[in-house]
Amino acid sequence: MTAEPTTTQRATGRPPAGSASRQHTLRERNLRLVARAIYDAAPSQTSAATPPSRADVAAATGLTRATVSTLVDHLVAARLVAELAPVSAQRAGRPAVPLVPARRTVVGLGLEVNVDYLGVRALDLSGETVADAVEHGSFHDSDPTTVLTRLGALAADVATRLQADGMRVAGARLALPGLVDARTGELEVAPNLGWSSVDPVGLLGLGGLPVHVANEAKLAALAELSGDVPPSFLYVSGDVGIGAAIVVDRALFLAERGWNGEVGHVVVDPAGPRCSCGAHGCLEQYAGKEAVLLAAGLPLDAPLRGLVAALEADDGARDALRRAGRALGSALADFVNLTGVSTVVLGGVYTELEPWLRDDVVAVLRERVLAAPFAEPDVRAARASQHAALTGGAREVLREVVADPAAWV
Amino acid sequence: MTAEPTTTQRATGRPPAGSASRQHTLRERNLRLVARAIYDAAPSQTSAATPPSRADVAAATGLTRATVSTLVDHLVAARLVAELAPVSAQRAGRPAVPLVPARRTVVGLGLEVNVDYLGVRALDLSGETVADAVEHGSFHDSDPTTVLTRLGALAADVATRLQADGMRVAGARLALPGLVDARTGELEVAPNLGWSSVDPVGLLGLGGLPVHVANEAKLAALAELSGDVPPSFLYVSGDVGIGAAIVVDRALFLAERGWNGEVGHVVVDPAGPRCSCGAHGCLEQYAGKEAVLLAAGLPLDAPLRGLVAALEADDGARDALRRAGRALGSALADFVNLTGVSTVVLGGVYTELEPWLRDDVVAVLRERVLAAPFAEPDVRAARASQHAALTGGAREVLREVVADPAAWV
Repeated sequence: MTAEPTTTQRATGRPPAGSASRQHTLRERNLRLVARAIYDAAPSQTSAATPPSRADVAAATGLTRATVSTLVDHLVAARLVAELAPVSAQRAGRPAVPLVPARRTVVGLGLEVNVDYLGVRALDLSGETVADAVEHGSFHDSDPTTVLTRLGALAADVATRLQADGMRVAGARLALPGLVDARTGELEVAPNLGWSSVDPVGLLGLGGLPVHVANEAKLAALAELSGDVPPSFLYVSGDVGIGAAIVVDRALFLAERGWNGEVGHVVVDPAGPRCSCGAHGCLEQYAGKEAVLLAAGLPLDAPLRGLVAALEADDGARDALRRAGRALGSALADFVNLTGVSTVVLGGVYTELEPWLRDDVVAVLRERVLAAPFAEPDVRAARASQHAALTGGAREVLREVVADPAAWV
Repeated sequence: MTAEPTTTQRATGRPPAGSASRQHTLRERNLRLVARAIYDAAPSQTSAATPPSRADVAAATGLTRATVSTLVDHLVAARLVAELAPVSAQRAGRPAVPLVPARRTVVGLGLEVNVDYLGVRALDLSGETVADAVEHGSFHDSDPTTVLTRLGALAADVATRLQADGMRVAGARLALPGLVDARTGELEVAPNLGWSSVDPVGLLGLGGLPVHVANEAKLAALAELSGDVPPSFLYVSGDVGIGAAIVVDRALFLAERGWNGEVGHVVVDPAGPRCSCGAHGCLEQYAGKEAVLLAAGLPLDAPLRGLVAALEADDGARDALRRAGRALGSALADFVNLTGVSTVVLGGVYTELEPWLRDDVVAVLRERVLAAPFAEPDVRAARASQHAALTGGAREVLREVVADPAAWV
């Protein structure tokens, strides 16, 4: 009945060599298989697949129809899965009931503090945004207690509102622009916020809600996975600092502690201006948001739409962007040559600036990527636009719900 | 009896969602589990573990003693596993027979063409080198047919000799300093050999012997795995060109086609000398073997021991190495910042030059790696010294034998 080795493992009291150490009961594993089959087959913005029926789920999992039917009933009762109106069967028998992720029942929260905004976003299991709250401000060298208390209050308001509407909040992910240990979720340092040795979760004050911390670019990259991006890509998140994530086969690459993708501190020119990190000529000094605004003759607190307006009007601003684009291309050429991942997704402020950056980035990648003659570099704007880390964080919470539905049934 | 889902999969004719598509019989899977248990527990140069008995293998795999005993008998008959003299049991019962990888029965061949040598190495299942043949020469802009025919003849000689001694040759890996597609084994280009669009396996003329092609640095990195290296590390192979491999959790990182680790073409200074790749100031121009010899005032074909002698005698040569070390540190800082892997293993000619390189490399990494305050960079000489790709290639062949022993039983 099961495809998993659980019973044998439990009988011998010891998993076979190479198996995962965590033990799951048969029912937990089968629930997960069924939930995954329904969620993987769900229609999305890029696919118009027909939702599966109980029979389809049985075929996809190798479980019997009776087992699938019982487990689906549990998932429906727990409001993780919803049933659509039956469609008439092509052959004799009862009409098939299409199964889809439930809407507005269980939500995940994405939270973020960045240099010029903080925000909260709630997504439901169908991927729909059910709440969004962003506050703009300047959090350069800010006080973590003040900022995180404010974000925590914003998140609590959102959660209270959703709960009043009958939704359950599964947990939250907090995105920060800094070094977050992917194993422990500890923040070591967030240079542009001026934070170090902070316990962000405690300061949020969200009580019993499970909150995990992650790097902003890593969570933003995950937001791309709902689109038609290739399975492996480099995600570059442009802001005051420039972060990045490496996605391989639709999963974050997190060797050791996940402290990777520091493309903002690739040295573009050792004779260049001094960077906050102590080195000279880091990419951030050419293509960071403040460096670009400065080069375009705009104030450092100019909104992105001000820069876009200048680019539409003004050759000087376009020159500044071309210089940033060539520097970005040079650092990305190193990134592609070192990781062998040939698709680059431009996120953060680069998403909106892509029309003015792309040609120079592509030209430098063609010149400098050794494998370019055999695998044309693919440079594209991110699909998820504003505050993608909020979306990616909320998605991560929901991914865990679907991966372990037994906790909700 | 088994921990694997084979029978259920075969009964339903369809693997469960997420399982590997290749089907294995129960016996194949169990043979593999047993072989892995014996090989994983084998005493190595860095561990003095006691070899396991049949009872130990049963405990480690969760299989019954009767099943294990039958499968071990097959592995012993096929000469993949050897039995040592029984040791007296601590409790009543028959004395336990220690099981170890067999010696001088099945061998893997490592082959390599590099800019200044070609070679063949044979390892047996115990990891011992049973044959070694290296020819020095200059293969810059060489004729692939001439060079590969010569290497093929060398390999055929070695194979014939080993077969006459009763050994079976399981296959070969050919290491080349160039872009090799990790999915197909095709060589796209080997710039320092001047090769492109070559079918190396056909030109070797080794008849029915299975030969696969891989990048030199990737295979050399695998040779480190028999030592006490951390599970994740960057392996940098210094020669005329500079290649690298990324090892994560003891496996090669090979996203997309495995075209990664091109650290030799990280731009250290865009105002620097023009590189063969077309860019300016690539690491290869500062820390490639020929660049170092030139800076040390030695002829380009000087042997490595000539450079070492100059370093022991001569401040000028030491200055040349310090310059190379700082450039290497700068490119490696980018590599560590981008991948988040904090251990760097210096291979190729850097292994012998490590005493003169290390301090400068470490100093630059401490300055430039953002996570250095939280994870001290670890720089070390490779354990496998000369021609590590030959060892790594032979190991890969043998790893596949142990991973699928049914083909040999």
